[in-house]
Amino acid sequence: MQRAMLGLAAAFLVGGTMAQADELRDLAKETFAPLPSTVPAVAGNPITPAKIDLGKALFFDPRISASGVFSCYSCHNLTTGGDDNMETSVGHGWQKGPRNSPTVLNSVLNEAQFWDGRAEDLKAQAKGPVQAGVEMANTPENVVVTLNSMPAYVDWFTVAFPEEQDPVSFDNMARAIEAFEATLITPAPFDAWLNGDDAALSDDAKAGLAVFMDKGCSSCHSGVNVGGHGYYPFGLVEKPGADVLPEGDKGRFAVTETVDDEYVFRASPLRNVAVTAPYFHSGKVWDLKVAVEIMAESQLGEALTDEEATQVVAFLDSLTGTVPEVTLPVLPPETATTPRPTAEVIAQ
Amino acid sequence: MQRAMLGLAAAFLVGGTMAQADELRDLAKETFAPLPSTVPAVAGNPITPAKIDLGKALFFDPRISASGVFSCYSCHNLTTGGDDNMETSVGHGWQKGPRNSPTVLNSVLNEAQFWDGRAEDLKAQAKGPVQAGVEMANTPENVVVTLNSMPAYVDWFTVAFPEEQDPVSFDNMARAIEAFEATLITPAPFDAWLNGDDAALSDDAKAGLAVFMDKGCSSCHSGVNVGGHGYYPFGLVEKPGADVLPEGDKGRFAVTETVDDEYVFRASPLRNVAVTAPYFHSGKVWDLKVAVEIMAESQLGEALTDEEATQVVAFLDSLTGTVPEVTLPVLPPETATTPRPTAEVIAQ
Repeated sequence: MQRAMLGLAAAFLVGGTMAQADELRDLAKETFAPLPSTVPAVAGNPITPAKIDLGKALFFDPRISASGVFSCYSCHNLTTGGDDNMETSVGHGWQKGPRNSPTVLNSVLNEAQFWDGRAEDLKAQAKGPVQAGVEMANTPENVVVTLNSMPAYVDWFTVAFPEEQDPVSFDNMARAIEAFEATLITPAPFDAWLNGDDAALSDDAKAGLAVFMDKGCSSCHSGVNVGGHGYYPFGLVEKPGADVLPEGDKGRFAVTETVDDEYVFRASPLRNVAVTAPYFHSGKVWDLKVAVEIMAESQLGEALTDEEATQVVAFLDSLTGTVPEVTLPVLPPETATTPRPTAEVIAQ
Repeated sequence: MQRAMLGLAAAFLVGGTMAQADELRDLAKETFAPLPSTVPAVAGNPITPAKIDLGKALFFDPRISASGVFSCYSCHNLTTGGDDNMETSVGHGWQKGPRNSPTVLNSVLNEAQFWDGRAEDLKAQAKGPVQAGVEMANTPENVVVTLNSMPAYVDWFTVAFPEEQDPVSFDNMARAIEAFEATLITPAPFDAWLNGDDAALSDDAKAGLAVFMDKGCSSCHSGVNVGGHGYYPFGLVEKPGADVLPEGDKGRFAVTETVDDEYVFRASPLRNVAVTAPYFHSGKVWDLKVAVEIMAESQLGEALTDEEATQVVAFLDSLTGTVPEVTLPVLPPETATTPRPTAEVIAQ
């Protein structure tokens, strides 16, 4: 199979034909899948327009953080690829977070959330940063008091969770945010090509796709999100230097406490990777081509040629999708009982 | 005149007639003006769709700040009344700014910008926070390098400033932001009422308007923005306590260095005041009714009755307008030459 694909890549380098394009597509469809045209269903959380609207309000609301400075949007900025374009995020008290902020775009299609997969879905994920001392530094109790202090929020929760006696809860906050985030699907040229549009990918991108499958990148970065499922050691073949893989962060080991999981991370989903630098959990690499070369060496033991690396980048560029139109919500004003923001940093 | 209005206020308290409504409106139209239905023209900065689009991108771009954490939107949040709902803003290095963030909504209609009016218009204002060490902590040179590093920005500046040899400049950044901000006009029930819709104001709001004019609030808070022009000492009749008026901030004195300008501030524009707590330059008061009472005592030497204060608040509520629909821009990705964000705090 690898050999057959190698031949295919070589064929592309000398100029592809229609039959070869179909062959490449057939192979690609065994490994990848185009984005769905509808909002993905989410386990245990039926998605409704009311829940999406509430979730959008919560996603943008900085009053979810103790300081009033940060909302979900702060580190998952929808204007800049769904992440924050920095090594690791800056949070409460100007503390730096431990890992690079992953994009929220298409994240509903990941198998698990966070770099180490410690949250099984977005509703579990959404509760993390709200409570993390280095991020929003808030408590579930304070969030619920905040939401209950604004009558419009109480109405919106009641409409979004009509069967519930006590709709304003931290869990339902997370469910609503998950519902909004599920709408953040970004169809890309690669999807158009998988769906049959030959012109959607450049020759370079097609050659890059062939290299990507041929060399084995797609062994881990596969499926609808071109990654986002499965756990692998960073440095499967050759451990990168401490500049890229700092020794202090042992990845999934912190979740499973199994020696085999030292420096193990979830394979990154690669949709929109070209607009979400810097790269890796450490955020230490800004150049996508350099990141591709590091991956090839550390995970596959392959030194890509300059042309191959350029082609793989052209393929990854074809994963940059169209962000859905997001109109800013208008949030309810604070009332007398809304907890006031505090920039104070409390030792953990 | 004051006496005639006093009579009018009394008439409203016992139930207004159509003729009295017309009389109140005629008086109000001598003092206030409804918002225009079109984007206001701005001196020296012709507003075009291309400039508005560019300005929107810049307004939302956190890469305008040294840290990559803050954009204009951070402290002028369009989901929460165009301000940031905290006493004073948190900026670079978690430093607290000296004064409460004023709303950006309708700010194009203010006579001058900042609490002390030190910027004559929004294009002058926009340059301040970008460079302030406690806010975005950036330099004009670094902003221009940042913008030039992203080809899409260079294209957008070229289209927005077609006559210019060197369109990507710090000045043009400010002009574009001013153009976007000029679109942030929020027509309110008070405008509908001024324009002839009797039902747009409740009886309480009309009574509050009569009190507002009668007691003299409208001597300073007048015009299209119900304030936003003219400078007055905070504590014209009776200086409020240091909890509300901290001694360290002498207001316009810092601009003019004239003793007469000690504790002098621009009369706040009151549109959307009900959704932009906390109040005053110090941000020390969260309750609008308390703020109204402090103003009546300190500026007018008047103790309002509880009913009067409630009515004035009902009038101020009628200044809460409809925020225009803002669709998030999609910003260009960084390139190899984009300066990297730095959270480092450099002593000024």
